[in-house]
Amino acid sequence: MSNSVRAAIIGATGYGGAELIRLLQAHPQVNITSVISTSNAGAPLADHFPHLQEIVVDILDELNVELIAGKADVVFLATPAGVSAELSPKLLAAGLKVIDISGDLRLKSRADYEKWYKHTAAPEEAIARAVYGLSEVFGDEVKSADLIANPGCYPTATLLGLIPAVKAGWIDPSTIIIDAKSGVSGAGRGLNLGFHYSEANENLTAYKVNKHQHIPEIEQALSRVAGKPVVTTFTTHLVPMTRGIMSTMYASVNGEHTAEDFTNLYRQYYEGRKFVRIRNSSGKPPATKEVSGSNYCDIGFSVDERTGRVTIVSVIDNVVKGAAGQAIQNLNIMMGWDETTGLLFAPVYP
Amino acid sequence: MSNSVRAAIIGATGYGGAELIRLLQAHPQVNITSVISTSNAGAPLADHFPHLQEIVVDILDELNVELIAGKADVVFLATPAGVSAELSPKLLAAGLKVIDISGDLRLKSRADYEKWYKHTAAPEEAIARAVYGLSEVFGDEVKSADLIANPGCYPTATLLGLIPAVKAGWIDPSTIIIDAKSGVSGAGRGLNLGFHYSEANENLTAYKVNKHQHIPEIEQALSRVAGKPVVTTFTTHLVPMTRGIMSTMYASVNGEHTAEDFTNLYRQYYEGRKFVRIRNSSGKPPATKEVSGSNYCDIGFSVDERTGRVTIVSVIDNVVKGAAGQAIQNLNIMMGWDETTGLLFAPVYP
Amino acid sequence: MSNSVRAAIIGATGYGGAELIRLLQAHPQVNITSVISTSNAGAPLADHFPHLQEIVVDILDELNVELIAGKADVVFLATPAGVSAELSPKLLAAGLKVIDISGDLRLKSRADYEKWYKHTAAPEEAIARAVYGLSEVFGDEVKSADLIANPGCYPTATLLGLIPAVKAGWIDPSTIIIDAKSGVSGAGRGLNLGFHYSEANENLTAYKVNKHQHIPEIEQALSRVAGKPVVTTFTTHLVPMTRGIMSTMYASVNGEHTAEDFTNLYRQYYEGRKFVRIRNSSGKPPATKEVSGSNYCDIGFSVDERTGRVTIVSVIDNVVKGAAGQAIQNLNIMMGWDETTGLLFAPVYP
Amino acid sequence: MSNSVRAAIIGATGYGGAELIRLLQAHPQVNITSVISTSNAGAPLADHFPHLQEIVVDILDELNVELIAGKADVVFLATPAGVSAELSPKLLAAGLKVIDISGDLRLKSRADYEKWYKHTAAPEEAIARAVYGLSEVFGDEVKSADLIANPGCYPTATLLGLIPAVKAGWIDPSTIIIDAKSGVSGAGRGLNLGFHYSEANENLTAYKVNKHQHIPEIEQALSRVAGKPVVTTFTTHLVPMTRGIMSTMYASVNGEHTAEDFTNLYRQYYEGRKFVRIRNSSGKPPATKEVSGSNYCDIGFSVDERTGRVTIVSVIDNVVKGAAGQAIQNLNIMMGWDETTGLLFAPVYP
Repeated sequence: MSNSVRAAIIGATGYGGAELIRLLQAHPQVNITSVISTSNAGAPLADHFPHLQEIVVDILDELNVELIAGKADVVFLATPAGVSAELSPKLLAAGLKVIDISGDLRLKSRADYEKWYKHTAAPEEAIARAVYGLSEVFGDEVKSADLIANPGCYPTATLLGLIPAVKAGWIDPSTIIIDAKSGVSGAGRGLNLGFHYSEANENLTAYKVNKHQHIPEIEQALSRVAGKPVVTTFTTHLVPMTRGIMSTMYASVNGEHTAEDFTNLYRQYYEGRKFVRIRNSSGKPPATKEVSGSNYCDIGFSVDERTGRVTIVSVIDNVVKGAAGQAIQNLNIMMGWDETTGLLFAPVYP
Repeated sequence: MSNSVRAAIIGATGYGGAELIRLLQAHPQVNITSVISTSNAGAPLADHFPHLQEIVVDILDELNVELIAGKADVVFLATPAGVSAELSPKLLAAGLKVIDISGDLRLKSRADYEKWYKHTAAPEEAIARAVYGLSEVFGDEVKSADLIANPGCYPTATLLGLIPAVKAGWIDPSTIIIDAKSGVSGAGRGLNLGFHYSEANENLTAYKVNKHQHIPEIEQALSRVAGKPVVTTFTTHLVPMTRGIMSTMYASVNGEHTAEDFTNLYRQYYEGRKFVRIRNSSGKPPATKEVSGSNYCDIGFSVDERTGRVTIVSVIDNVVKGAAGQAIQNLNIMMGWDETTGLLFAPVYP
Repeated sequence: MSNSVRAAIIGATGYGGAELIRLLQAHPQVNITSVISTSNAGAPLADHFPHLQEIVVDILDELNVELIAGKADVVFLATPAGVSAELSPKLLAAGLKVIDISGDLRLKSRADYEKWYKHTAAPEEAIARAVYGLSEVFGDEVKSADLIANPGCYPTATLLGLIPAVKAGWIDPSTIIIDAKSGVSGAGRGLNLGFHYSEANENLTAYKVNKHQHIPEIEQALSRVAGKPVVTTFTTHLVPMTRGIMSTMYASVNGEHTAEDFTNLYRQYYEGRKFVRIRNSSGKPPATKEVSGSNYCDIGFSVDERTGRVTIVSVIDNVVKGAAGQAIQNLNIMMGWDETTGLLFAPVYP
Repeated sequence: MSNSVRAAIIGATGYGGAELIRLLQAHPQVNITSVISTSNAGAPLADHFPHLQEIVVDILDELNVELIAGKADVVFLATPAGVSAELSPKLLAAGLKVIDISGDLRLKSRADYEKWYKHTAAPEEAIARAVYGLSEVFGDEVKSADLIANPGCYPTATLLGLIPAVKAGWIDPSTIIIDAKSGVSGAGRGLNLGFHYSEANENLTAYKVNKHQHIPEIEQALSRVAGKPVVTTFTTHLVPMTRGIMSTMYASVNGEHTAEDFTNLYRQYYEGRKFVRIRNSSGKPPATKEVSGSNYCDIGFSVDERTGRVTIVSVIDNVVKGAAGQAIQNLNIMMGWDETTGLLFAPVYP
């Protein structure tokens, strides 16, 4: 295809990498030209992911910027914290477009990054250049970007669920409480007792309470939209399922707004954006399985007159809309394609 | 055993009934003398619960108050909403002690019951006579009771996690937000698309948002402890696991109290009560699997100086401490036995 | 698209129907023109499958042959046993092509059908006209068919794993033992205590031992390939997962053949057929998750010199290759398209 | 209690150790006097198993034979392969009774051990002294033993399901095929990609096909009972659940025996042994959940006249009857107590 793009994926043996491969392999305007793994270079990708046998036959490349620049137009980074901070400037210098799925370039404050991530922050210049790719909210900035800080999984579900109400002034930002729950794939493929099957199965745990690195990311975006500093309470839970994130969010409503009002406000805000679906206020709230395997974010509302609070439920597939899918959506926007290109597959149900 | 009690179980073919049988069968001072099922009388219990084959060989009895009065000293009701409201007065009149696991006798306001349960409320007299059996909080009243309204599963986890702080005035009751999550066994054995394996597995759903019948139960107890009306936001979620409840609770802290302070406050409040375990503030919050199959309620704290809020995590096994186990704990208290009699088994892990 | 086909789906509110919709919605040469449900006609499809909200906006049609004939070229039947036996002849008479996912037209012997299915068999004529659509084996017959009896989920995994060896005479058909395991979605969306989450979760059950209706289907195909009557031992198990089938198969090897020999034999047999992937004999056997959400069937071998037996492991996604995917593969073959059209998506992993 | 025994547990931070602690803690005639971990000595046990907080308050001891001899009468070894081979002789020399849950002392042939386990075998003398503790079959030998080789989880389910038929000559041992399935806890607490939640969940895998170290253990016992060498086909599968083993076993029937005949034969063989429950031939085969958390082994039969084969389904909880529970049952027998002492708790259901 004349209008096609060559893509390289760094971190191809992790779950983010695998999902990028699954989705890009089906994208009509992208060719995967290099799958890269620092630790496993030289082995066939299918040795690490037998499900890709005979589908993606590539040998894992080593990480070599010059090599990548010769093979690809855009690079996806699905790497652990700390890698992109160092690597992205080099990839940009080599003329590549960069979409970073890691958290390295999301926080505008280097101090915040170092406080929450316990790593050295990326250079000021790279941070300044990076556009925060929450597609439905900051898509206009994505259009002209060459470096995307792809949002985290929790922030994606949370911000899509909060921003229209914050922007409209319908909720008091100081009252926001976010109770978030994630499937285990969000923790990646690295071994850890907490993600050992016999420990995580039939179990529900709260973790990193008040310490999760997605807190400053959420607050940064909310503050920007609110036009004033926003501080939130944010708790994460590990749910015994592989995929899916739900953010259940609470806030005091300013004035009188029913669930139906919220529904209408959000439908207006997200008009024309296919990947955000607002549920009817008369129906059930969205469930994670209803977006599983897809790039959708479904949102529902309940307003309790007794307490004056709204409860907002927002769900995504953490590996798709919360990572690889939104990354490709951002690529689409950067390339001037329809943002849905290659992403309009239905959720896998059941 | 001379000091033993004869127990009958109504609703023996549901999960609450099965758990009562499992626990009472191992209780040193109780003999199960009748297992009762209105719909399956005449069949062996093991036809409905093959796991009890050769352990409990009884034939299911029909529901007949006179018959029960001849066979038992105490009756456990593990029945759907509406049954106990009618039945309990008759059982009491026949001289039986009654421990009701259903929600029929928990709400002191008949209007509240009818609003939230959509059933006819129990007679005023029965409601007045019923003691709300949250063992660690209202155990003194249980001692002299002959009719126990055993707390609901969500209220048990929630109230044990909130009451000491409310009582001490350390949190502002008007700011309490309760995000609760339950395994699917809490929904019972009745068939329903939402609990069909292929729908509930790998799925996380919020349900009955602002409409759950446990809301007035929680508010009634909190109001009593606070000495003023308390209204809360309470959301329930269905988690893909069989057993376990977690309540994640949020509230604004009055004054300066650290997580360690909360830990000490709660340890003092629950001193001598073996079934409530307070986690060290330096460690991880409790996980549901850590109490699975047991009568324990584990509680942990995090205080966020940035927001001035405390996050309280409380976990129980919904079928044990949230139903059958606490019911037996209440029996123990009523009989003047140690409250832990027959209940000191460790959680099943993993 | 000029070369496109209009498709109707009967039984659109079941899991087979939902999967047909998911896959056909992404098929470049098919338009879904009618989704049909006898019991729910008039309601939006998304009322039954919220995951399809805004993706498939159709209202469920009633079942009316004339109506279908005016709207569609091909009809997929995802209906319970007994429906297609009556309906297929009428649809054919109306000039429609029919692909039947149910078991009604698979058995050539009406007596066998009535013995194993406990329903009245389809008319002799319909049975004679139906082609058994095991795509990789009987694809040549599919080309000219207008009525497809789409294979069952267990038979698909089992037959693809056995036929090359039986055909080559490498195993003794009289020694074949098939130990099959399925995820719960294979049981469909109908409520039943055995598929109630709290019963099926954390549980493994054997069911319909020696009585499963897929036994005669498997034996019919093996007998045809072997050129003599084959009788097998076949056991099915319910595994606590939503999707996936594994058939573990045992047989005595005729002569001396290593696992590598089997690998080569099967690779030769399935040459050019993308959806059957043969694992290297030196690696691990295939796992169900490695084909989840996809149309692949992965097969691996182990030969034990001590016993002279081969162990064959074959896995599929029961809803895709075991139902909707293979049905579309058969449509592709019937239409003269590449059999992989619209089906070359990678498995969803993890 | 005067007649009580002091027990030490080596390997207390693994799952076998945790289960020994859970069960022994409730045993009326055993006191746990030392919990031992080579790698974690000095830490509180509850640091590794928070579910035991306030229940078992012990500090982990180092592994020191003299120390153990001063504190305990009996030692349970829940250690990895290779440890007991070296350690057991020393513990015996120090006058301790030893119950070894590992596989080190099960095989009478040192060559077999080294072939299948890839470790150095235990000294001939220790092997000769060890009694294979399949309680219901070799209980008479256990009575006078001071060193027990506690059977493996798969062999327990398998042998209890096969031995009566082999002994009676009702099945042809050369035709035995064993298709076994296990929950993930059988793999222990050691980290491994295969047991990482996101890999094992919603997945079914066959592993160690024809290579599992339980094969020689099963064959050794069957050969002993059959009075001639028996070679079997044995395949293991990993099922996405925490606990439970099912062995589905196939064999050709000698002569004419119905499922009811098998039922009667087994009931006679296991008469008086409470932990083996034989299902009615008219009912469903046993499911793993029906023995979960308990020491029961449930067995059911189906005979297919068409093939002349019997299908035997045998289920246990791998951590209880397949490890810690049977170990305690053996202790009971060694001590001359009723074999059910401390073990008569019902399965946890659901």
